[in-house]
Amino acid sequence: MSRFLTEKHNGLSPYVPGEQPKDDQYIKLNTNELPFPPSPLAQRLAREAAGTVNLYCDPECTALRKTAAEVWNVDPDEIMFANGSDDVLNYAFSAFCDEKHPLVFPDVTYSFYTSIAALNHVPYEEIPVDEEFRILPEDYYSCNKNVLLANPNAPSGIALPLSVIEKILQTNPDNIVMIDEAYIDFGGETATKLINRYDNLVVIRTFSKSCGMAGARLGAAIACKELIEDMNRLRNSLNPYCINSMTMQAGIGALLDRSYFESCLKRIGAIREDAAEKLRAAGFTVTSSTTNFLFVKHPAYPGKEIYEDLKKKNILIRHFNTPRLKEWARISIGNEEEMEVLLETLLGLLKERTDA
Amino acid sequence: MSRFLTEKHNGLSPYVPGEQPKDDQYIKLNTNELPFPPSPLAQRLAREAAGTVNLYCDPECTALRKTAAEVWNVDPDEIMFANGSDDVLNYAFSAFCDEKHPLVFPDVTYSFYTSIAALNHVPYEEIPVDEEFRILPEDYYSCNKNVLLANPNAPSGIALPLSVIEKILQTNPDNIVMIDEAYIDFGGETATKLINRYDNLVVIRTFSKSCGMAGARLGAAIACKELIEDMNRLRNSLNPYCINSMTMQAGIGALLDRSYFESCLKRIGAIREDAAEKLRAAGFTVTSSTTNFLFVKHPAYPGKEIYEDLKKKNILIRHFNTPRLKEWARISIGNEEEMEVLLETLLGLLKERTDA
Repeated sequence: MSRFLTEKHNGLSPYVPGEQPKDDQYIKLNTNELPFPPSPLAQRLAREAAGTVNLYCDPECTALRKTAAEVWNVDPDEIMFANGSDDVLNYAFSAFCDEKHPLVFPDVTYSFYTSIAALNHVPYEEIPVDEEFRILPEDYYSCNKNVLLANPNAPSGIALPLSVIEKILQTNPDNIVMIDEAYIDFGGETATKLINRYDNLVVIRTFSKSCGMAGARLGAAIACKELIEDMNRLRNSLNPYCINSMTMQAGIGALLDRSYFESCLKRIGAIREDAAEKLRAAGFTVTSSTTNFLFVKHPAYPGKEIYEDLKKKNILIRHFNTPRLKEWARISIGNEEEMEVLLETLLGLLKERTDA
Repeated sequence: MSRFLTEKHNGLSPYVPGEQPKDDQYIKLNTNELPFPPSPLAQRLAREAAGTVNLYCDPECTALRKTAAEVWNVDPDEIMFANGSDDVLNYAFSAFCDEKHPLVFPDVTYSFYTSIAALNHVPYEEIPVDEEFRILPEDYYSCNKNVLLANPNAPSGIALPLSVIEKILQTNPDNIVMIDEAYIDFGGETATKLINRYDNLVVIRTFSKSCGMAGARLGAAIACKELIEDMNRLRNSLNPYCINSMTMQAGIGALLDRSYFESCLKRIGAIREDAAEKLRAAGFTVTSSTTNFLFVKHPAYPGKEIYEDLKKKNILIRHFNTPRLKEWARISIGNEEEMEVLLETLLGLLKERTDA
């Protein structure tokens, strides 16, 4: 830290992203990426845009918003795009949360929320999920604070039904309810259909997971026009050109190429269910994930050791070294071949261990 | 504005970007873009990256920082990349400026500075430039506030010598001095060579202008390691993956392709000097620009009318409707053909006007 960093940032401890190895030695199942390439149409449109990046990108993302509005069945004025959903979260936190409008979210969720709350000096309370990592809806009914829920939640993968989201919205009419739908496409009911009925709802989406665009950086907020205007006011003060032309075009391609999108989701679902079944058969506890990852533990094999042993075998998964999660391991769903290697390796390691 | 926007953002009036027309009807000389395509190598590397954006980009920008460090003759740890220089400015403002550490910058400069100061609640003072838009160095010596200067400045295009920058650094040892070098490659002496001698210097760069990557969004801070660490602490709390893979690769290509880069600069310089000479010969006052734009006025032709008349002829330039700038017009340097059309049209309009 230099002598110039302002006091307000003392003690800020940044989010630690999952490892991004710089070589290809690993089967990478640690950051919930799609294991398939982005849509061929997305790739083609992005490539075409590369030749004209000497010109500024459209700060209003007009064409992208128009396409997304059709696919998501909302109005273009009900969408704001930003540089990944982390960027969207920052605008939402800054716009709607402060000392007088603190935030609640589950104690077990996307760990980035605490980083971005700390950066924005937003007071927050972490509400414990139950022993099985389930969010308890009643904790959020009439809680009289801004609410942030990942639905499905991470790293559990468990989704809340839309009726619960709606009751949270209804019982907190003077607070903002943010629903982070990073994994919604893999299973779960989107809350976007509620934006016209609740002026306190912000749905947050990313193209990083189901659209296979983690490295392109594209996230969105979907909300009533007034909330979008508020967030755009901040975005236009900070970074009006935040979506580059190549990503903008890739986003349009990913949205238009519905058959590729649907086939990726179907494949991920099938691979996930197959892996979950095999892991359960081997004695693993596996949460009911409707996402592109599995959260698992085994009575004879602590999560940290699973992580370390797999890493030695060139397979990267994610371990969270926190009191509630340390026994567990999170495995992103890879493609068929990758998951075959993962299962063979992991079940082999388990056998060695239990045979010993 | 919704009923949920927090008080701290009341009255925030966002930056208004230059027009980005969505069709090709205009010769576009209004936002200081490079009128040539990005480097062929930059394009190729960006296209190659499009196929693997399902994987996250490198949050540390390792390869890009390594390449930039070699070209800029600094250490990789002395560089932070972000999503355009606007994003870099936001991190610098947030890290180093607050109520106790207010900021000064010229009253005539990049108008975005006031937006980003307002968003960050940074008190600022605008110090008048002289009648010829020159920054008066003594205004900044021992001013005991954080300093932000665009060098060369916009929209005047006028550069300060490095000796002045150094004296500002020396006489404000307990304040941060930010030098926004958006246009430095077109002419002017970079301050990067001073970062090892002054722990209070932050140099800000963009790939939008000289590298022809406005639509790809890439900016950088160059400073001593400690200041970079401070800004990275914020960046990693807000948006660790802020540079997408395609832009990262395009940046590497733009940096490596020195011959293309140098030839673009040479062409812009020649076109600018030719245009300046012809405009002066027609009675225009033209500031001494070392950038890729000209700032001009004519006693018989107010800037607003130049802007409006040219727009009718399908040429877009920039007019700033502020008390000090309203007589002036800013013309970005286009390619040879575009500038021929601009000059012919503008001088024709002037002739009609003065003949009438």
